[in-house]
Amino acid sequence: MTAPFRIAIAGLGTVGSGVVKALAARGDDLSRRAGRALQITAMSARDKTRARGFDITGWRDDPLALADSDADVVVELIGGEEGVARQLVERALANGKHVVTANKALLARHGLALAKLAEDKGVSLKFEAAAAGGIPIVKVLREDLIAHGVDAVKGILNGTCNYILTEMEASGRSFADVLKEAQEKGYAEADPTLDVGGGDTAHKLCLLASLAFGTAPDFASVAVEGITHITADDIAFASEFGFRIKLLGVARRVGDKIDQKVHPAMVKARAALANVSGAANGVLVDAGEAGSFFFSGRGAGEAPTASAVIADIVEAASEGTQPSPVFGRPASGLARLDPADGKALASPWYLRFEVLDVPGVLAAIASHLAEAGVSIESMIQRGRAPGEPVAIVMITHETAQAAVERALKAISLSDKVRARPCMIPMEA
Amino acid sequence: MTAPFRIAIAGLGTVGSGVVKALAARGDDLSRRAGRALQITAMSARDKTRARGFDITGWRDDPLALADSDADVVVELIGGEEGVARQLVERALANGKHVVTANKALLARHGLALAKLAEDKGVSLKFEAAAAGGIPIVKVLREDLIAHGVDAVKGILNGTCNYILTEMEASGRSFADVLKEAQEKGYAEADPTLDVGGGDTAHKLCLLASLAFGTAPDFASVAVEGITHITADDIAFASEFGFRIKLLGVARRVGDKIDQKVHPAMVKARAALANVSGAANGVLVDAGEAGSFFFSGRGAGEAPTASAVIADIVEAASEGTQPSPVFGRPASGLARLDPADGKALASPWYLRFEVLDVPGVLAAIASHLAEAGVSIESMIQRGRAPGEPVAIVMITHETAQAAVERALKAISLSDKVRARPCMIPMEA
Repeated sequence: MTAPFRIAIAGLGTVGSGVVKALAARGDDLSRRAGRALQITAMSARDKTRARGFDITGWRDDPLALADSDADVVVELIGGEEGVARQLVERALANGKHVVTANKALLARHGLALAKLAEDKGVSLKFEAAAAGGIPIVKVLREDLIAHGVDAVKGILNGTCNYILTEMEASGRSFADVLKEAQEKGYAEADPTLDVGGGDTAHKLCLLASLAFGTAPDFASVAVEGITHITADDIAFASEFGFRIKLLGVARRVGDKIDQKVHPAMVKARAALANVSGAANGVLVDAGEAGSFFFSGRGAGEAPTASAVIADIVEAASEGTQPSPVFGRPASGLARLDPADGKALASPWYLRFEVLDVPGVLAAIASHLAEAGVSIESMIQRGRAPGEPVAIVMITHETAQAAVERALKAISLSDKVRARPCMIPMEA
Repeated sequence: MTAPFRIAIAGLGTVGSGVVKALAARGDDLSRRAGRALQITAMSARDKTRARGFDITGWRDDPLALADSDADVVVELIGGEEGVARQLVERALANGKHVVTANKALLARHGLALAKLAEDKGVSLKFEAAAAGGIPIVKVLREDLIAHGVDAVKGILNGTCNYILTEMEASGRSFADVLKEAQEKGYAEADPTLDVGGGDTAHKLCLLASLAFGTAPDFASVAVEGITHITADDIAFASEFGFRIKLLGVARRVGDKIDQKVHPAMVKARAALANVSGAANGVLVDAGEAGSFFFSGRGAGEAPTASAVIADIVEAASEGTQPSPVFGRPASGLARLDPADGKALASPWYLRFEVLDVPGVLAAIASHLAEAGVSIESMIQRGRAPGEPVAIVMITHETAQAAVERALKAISLSDKVRARPCMIPMEA
């Protein structure tokens, strides 16, 4: 048998602890799979004294010291796109160590440079845990659905958002209410911006796009819209039309360009993505002639994320001296992504206006829509007390996003329209 | 760059042609992924003269000659558990060549011996295409969902059966009618026994069980029941109860033993597996603490199956001299599967009796059920003309299969019960 594979772990929060525990519980089986003993030789975290239920083997106060230890692989679970996490990954790779990380933000920003560094040094840089937790979507795109190209990847990639939307639908409560409860239960962060604003989904999406299309990760090109403006009304109307509202990350080929966007979408209630409930994640891959493939499961939490980290560790241990390219193709050949004009893409739209129930409002809205070339397929207006605010909901025919935005901009200038009108694309 | 990776293909039917075409269309990208040029150097098939739309590079009349060619990998797409396919795979491995195959029957019967041979020779034996076509479930079980063990794998693994059941539900037609149409359309074989009898699902299931549980493939221990006895009535009743009937392959841990069975099951209409429609496949993996993961997509056909074969070829090309173990763990250490007593497992059951509409029938059925300890949760009887056959349908409380079988055996002896009563377990 080959020499043991020495593992250094930086960050012992939920995921790091999960990795240590799973290696303790199933180390023998995992070592048999890897073809060599797996052995934790060093650890680092913020607080040495915290009770964790396991020994802190080879403790280092300074996480950067892990990069200088005798470890074969450094597992980076600190997080954050700059600072210690970035320094540690760079130093470990520069020192010829494999790196396994769950850090989507780091790779979304610096993925290309880090992949080049890893490939120059002949070591692995693996990140299965960075997207969709336990769902092995990174490997599926990197190694499995490769024969016929990928036309599109659509995913529910943020469990917090999906939990909130699912709860809003089940209970009829408002976004703010459900978010507050989720925070109390620990399902949402004290500062939820990165989740509910769509940024976390965008980090993950740009990694999946890179794997799917052979382009360098390009976070800056992702158009990002979150779920903070979705109301209980929107969800109820969606349900009436036979749809559910989901926060999707969508990356697709448009001619020879790539469109990447994160936005709430109306998904048909019977579609696979619509049935991804609660904190789960789900990803749909359109793999050209090979057809569509769907993957779902737990996208966060101790065991699912540790599962992804451990699969990467075992792979790094067994690959030996021939690590596969970080993003599936050699980093030096990753094309620069050429962003498509996302606003030119057409779909039917759900539009909601909050208006004062006074004569002429509907005529004004309709004429602005007509002027922008937006035609209406169906409309719902529910009467309330005259002079009070009322919701008007419309479904458009297939229309480019730019045209809808032009109409809504004009409409929102009217003094009879309260708040920003809401527009949500309807998935085919 | 390393030397080209030389590929010999045996069998140029649907899948073989798909592999040749995809390598022609996307060879450059695939070579970049593999880190070396991919080059077809030899081929063999039954009929040399058939028009295929591509050149038959390095033709050999005798497929066994591929094992003696200068190829690095032999791709076996002939099929069949014995005969030429087996000889070719054995000879190729013995000659130190990697083997990629879609042959579920061969591996179900001889998987352990072939894996040992491959590992002795230090070469790859890969079979992603042998189960669930384009869904990368083999790799997922072999390399991804490994950290927390697997408790159960449940799959819709035969597209022909799923197509027939889906059509029966959509049209209300009989099994025989839909099968006949499927045969005319080329969706079902002239001799459909291996598909509709459950044997094909059993071949695939025992491979997935081996990967999931670290046991040698054990086809002989799979209890197999097909779909030939399912009636339009059964499907209509299922729908009334909020279920769909699906042919499932199920492998699960029961204590320290493994239960493997193939049978029609009632699946809740909202469950992921129930929504796998037509010729698609779907697999649910219960990965211990990491939770449940679901995978679906096209399980057969030219492009999806070629996609799986090509992923294996690229992996074999890039792994070089350190191929990963065939079934995830070294073949020499694969435990012998210890079969659980599958009939001891309890679930609610759907029971259908075809009876003569005469006094006393229901009393007789009820007393036999009571005697065997089977208690009834609900019942539907639809009146028809007295003296004519009528269906009685019952849902039982949770009951062991053995008890239900005991009761049904007694009941089927009655001269008022026509045909064999039907029993279908209801999935949680």
